[in-house]
Amino acid sequence: MTDGQVLVAIENPKPGRDYTVRCSTPELTCNCPVTGQPDFATVTIEYVPAELIVELKSLKLYLWGYRNQGAYHEEITNRILDDLAGLLKPKSMTVTTDWYVRGGIQTTVVAAHP
Amino acid sequence: MTDGQVLVAIENPKPGRDYTVRCSTPELTCNCPVTGQPDFATVTIEYVPAELIVELKSLKLYLWGYRNQGAYHEEITNRILDDLAGLLKPKSMTVTTDWYVRGGIQTTVVAAHP
Amino acid sequence: MTDGQVLVAIENPKPGRDYTVRCSTPELTCNCPVTGQPDFATVTIEYVPAELIVELKSLKLYLWGYRNQGAYHEEITNRILDDLAGLLKPKSMTVTTDWYVRGGIQTTVVAAHP
Amino acid sequence: MTDGQVLVAIENPKPGRDYTVRCSTPELTCNCPVTGQPDFATVTIEYVPAELIVELKSLKLYLWGYRNQGAYHEEITNRILDDLAGLLKPKSMTVTTDWYVRGGIQTTVVAAHP
Amino acid sequence: MTDGQVLVAIENPKPGRDYTVRCSTPELTCNCPVTGQPDFATVTIEYVPAELIVELKSLKLYLWGYRNQGAYHEEITNRILDDLAGLLKPKSMTVTTDWYVRGGIQTTVVAAHP
Amino acid sequence: MTDGQVLVAIENPKPGRDYTVRCSTPELTCNCPVTGQPDFATVTIEYVPAELIVELKSLKLYLWGYRNQGAYHEEITNRILDDLAGLLKPKSMTVTTDWYVRGGIQTTVVAAHP
Amino acid sequence: MTDGQVLVAIENPKPGRDYTVRCSTPELTCNCPVTGQPDFATVTIEYVPAELIVELKSLKLYLWGYRNQGAYHEEITNRILDDLAGLLKPKSMTVTTDWYVRGGIQTTVVAAHP
Amino acid sequence: MTDGQVLVAIENPKPGRDYTVRCSTPELTCNCPVTGQPDFATVTIEYVPAELIVELKSLKLYLWGYRNQGAYHEEITNRILDDLAGLLKPKSMTVTTDWYVRGGIQTTVVAAHP
Amino acid sequence: MTDGQVLVAIENPKPGRDYTVRCSTPELTCNCPVTGQPDFATVTIEYVPAELIVELKSLKLYLWGYRNQGAYHEEITNRILDDLAGLLKPKSMTVTTDWYVRGGIQTTVVAAHP
Amino acid sequence: MTDGQVLVAIENPKPGRDYTVRCSTPELTCNCPVTGQPDFATVTIEYVPAELIVELKSLKLYLWGYRNQGAYHEEITNRILDDLAGLLKPKSMTVTTDWYVRGGIQTTVVAAHP
Repeated sequence: MTDGQVLVAIENPKPGRDYTVRCSTPELTCNCPVTGQPDFATVTIEYVPAELIVELKSLKLYLWGYRNQGAYHEEITNRILDDLAGLLKPKSMTVTTDWYVRGGIQTTVVAAHP
Repeated sequence: MTDGQVLVAIENPKPGRDYTVRCSTPELTCNCPVTGQPDFATVTIEYVPAELIVELKSLKLYLWGYRNQGAYHEEITNRILDDLAGLLKPKSMTVTTDWYVRGGIQTTVVAAHP
Repeated sequence: MTDGQVLVAIENPKPGRDYTVRCSTPELTCNCPVTGQPDFATVTIEYVPAELIVELKSLKLYLWGYRNQGAYHEEITNRILDDLAGLLKPKSMTVTTDWYVRGGIQTTVVAAHP
Repeated sequence: MTDGQVLVAIENPKPGRDYTVRCSTPELTCNCPVTGQPDFATVTIEYVPAELIVELKSLKLYLWGYRNQGAYHEEITNRILDDLAGLLKPKSMTVTTDWYVRGGIQTTVVAAHP
Repeated sequence: MTDGQVLVAIENPKPGRDYTVRCSTPELTCNCPVTGQPDFATVTIEYVPAELIVELKSLKLYLWGYRNQGAYHEEITNRILDDLAGLLKPKSMTVTTDWYVRGGIQTTVVAAHP
Repeated sequence: MTDGQVLVAIENPKPGRDYTVRCSTPELTCNCPVTGQPDFATVTIEYVPAELIVELKSLKLYLWGYRNQGAYHEEITNRILDDLAGLLKPKSMTVTTDWYVRGGIQTTVVAAHP
Repeated sequence: MTDGQVLVAIENPKPGRDYTVRCSTPELTCNCPVTGQPDFATVTIEYVPAELIVELKSLKLYLWGYRNQGAYHEEITNRILDDLAGLLKPKSMTVTTDWYVRGGIQTTVVAAHP
Repeated sequence: MTDGQVLVAIENPKPGRDYTVRCSTPELTCNCPVTGQPDFATVTIEYVPAELIVELKSLKLYLWGYRNQGAYHEEITNRILDDLAGLLKPKSMTVTTDWYVRGGIQTTVVAAHP
Repeated sequence: MTDGQVLVAIENPKPGRDYTVRCSTPELTCNCPVTGQPDFATVTIEYVPAELIVELKSLKLYLWGYRNQGAYHEEITNRILDDLAGLLKPKSMTVTTDWYVRGGIQTTVVAAHP
Repeated sequence: MTDGQVLVAIENPKPGRDYTVRCSTPELTCNCPVTGQPDFATVTIEYVPAELIVELKSLKLYLWGYRNQGAYHEEITNRILDDLAGLLKPKSMTVTTDWYVRGGIQTTVVAAHP
């Protein structure tokens, strides 16, 4: 998890029903681990909660925590999924990151749990 | 259900056939239960009626009834589903809410019955 | 069926193959049975023909026949399906109506045969 | 001005240059003065500042202040312009409101100062 | 003017300022004067009011009044402009009608006063 | 003018006002004068009528008349303008043709009278 | 098949793999068999080749060959499918035609082999 | 001018009228003069011809001639304008190039003659 | 594989999870094997990695390597798939190429492994 | 100017002609001077060069230099304009910044020189 940024879970208000929550923001940025230059992505988190849902303000701060970290596209996507799925223990969860063009190539990574 | 706003059901004109009705409005607004500040969403209700369909004017008034209530995104979506499914006893129903950006994050909640 | 407007069927030029025909027009209008005020919809008819296909000019006239009739959204959709499926005896048919906003709410009805 | 909501002005960081600031939000809502039913609009404020610019958080609270007020589309647009132009004394300002469909009609109002 | 449908003017709430009101609806329909078949258009009315503005419900009823009338595209556009400009005496007014495709051709008519 | 297809003019219903008529169709096709292969274009005719307006059915037939003729993009655009302006004697007229891609290049021609 | 226009097949460069080829053009035109007036469509051909693929220039000429032929929408779609599937013997093939509006109605036909 | 690719001019079919021709293609590619890596652009040429218009096939070949040349975005845009304006002596001409993203930055260059 | 351009694989940072990587660029160009004229495509590569993922800079250089090669649309798509799947041994991979219009026809090729 | 990031100017390859260069990137990010939280914007720079044009790689690095700086929307826009206009001495220059939603409000700032 990113330094000092604590993801907060709150109680699912309707634990008896399988429903879907989707959160999306174009404000994910980190640094390229090779060149040190900034990368930018839109991240979308979609999940079916079990007992817990994520508190939105803590999610915002958690994602901002990547701002000064270096990581490959594939790595960061899986790390966000690990952190969120580890905390919320959802029935299912998918994390998608859409990265801005680098070298003429647009990259998207989609990781799902379980 | 919201105070004093009564959802009205009318008879399904074609009860022998499984067909789909979808109602959508960008005019759902309520208050954030934490900060008291207004939230806004587009709500879409899709269902296969059994014996009853919802009367549209009462649906409009029912949704307007949330204007001064406080509720989390996940909670209000499930409550609309509970109220409508409780009244209409549909063969199936899905409620989707798309919320305006807060803290840079756009949130969508999708709940289905049964 | 609407007064004096006769839907015409013609022979399917390729009865040995299951293929799909889709006809759509934004020119469906009728009256609200409660208020008498006009309603407007885009109607889409999609079907897999058996021995017959619909003649397009007669379909146009048939749909125009609703102009001065009063009917609920759900009712008119099922009636168009009944009339067309009754005439063409298709292998399958779906009728979709997308209605203009009333009371801030956009409504869609989808009915299928069989 | 709306009750208890105080628009706040801050110093223009570049008073020597004519430049343009445009703020837009789809979250303006008030009540219809005739029927008491809610209305919704997107409001856009564009201005060339003189000595002052508007502080964004106070603008947000100011616009939220219309939530329980009744006013015609034309009236509210001119009132927002009067309040903002009165406070900021800009070189020029335009306020545009785009209202959701009522009675099948979409309405836009554009007012400019001076 | 259309039979029995009375356009209603109300007082301009800000007569001292030149501002713009734009009303638009896709629900204009009339009959072709040659064939008697229905025609459909989106109509947009944009004006700078002087002492009067149009009351929206009466505008809706006025436009619905064309439903059973026969008129050429060019004629109806000018008639709406004449009726509205005659009533409101605006500083300026433009009426635009966008008609659905007939014979493969899409037609638009734009008339302005003065 | 194309063989045997006669453009028909009808009386302008509002000769005392300068207003605009715009007709557009994606159904213009002719042959390349060099290769004999078909070309396709969307044509838009916009004019301010004087004493006459064009009758739409005759316009449709006139444009269809180019189907078996060979002409360069620039030539056909000017010819349509000459024919229509010659007949209608409009206060002003613009003809625009947007041609489908040939050799990877999309071409548009815009000619105005006077 | 259209007069004198010969569809040409070439060898599939990767016969050992099931892959998909999709060709689309908005340049299909023929004549209405009833009125003799031109019709226009976008045609899309999607197939999984077996031993042969279609040569694109011959496909272009083949489709242009319909220019002076009369055929119903449903008929021409099935004929294109028959001709191409007869020549290429593909593992599967779908032909879709989207026709321009006639009588206010837009029509699409989708036929698949086998 | 590019090696061996000769732009060809043909006679303007309507030299007495000021009209506009616009040609656009997304198929311009050259090499970065610094890194040697390929660059890609959409180029749009808009002009009012005097005595000459450009022959489209020669324009295609001319633009393809840049494929193995190195040039800055600003330089190539001005060179295309110089070559075309030098040949055609148009009344006016504008060349626009829209380049694909490099280093996260999208660049457009617009040059006009005279 | 293209001359001298070496695709580079790097270690999958999350080998224990089936996730998807999608890379897309509109900068694929090669030459028509028949006419020698340039062709252009957008290429999209989507795969579920096993032990290896592709290094993006080497992918960019690999794709640029087709610039001076001649190949049919179907052939090049399968070759890219063969090269990438051969190197990465992914759990699954799909390569899609969307080619610019030639002869009025837009072509797409989709090949999947295994 | 941002710390250690040096904007580089290069010679205008066509100083005798007034032409326009426009550079745009969605990758501008800085910190809110009040809350310390990140802000994001798309920045567009459009100018008519005199003797100098900006070197694109240095522009990229210059804009990345704002990543850890705090500044109001209005301030940063004017500062970018001051830095670029100070270096390039262009005939004219406009800088536009479009900021992501904060507090439900989208803000744009446009500053021009001279």
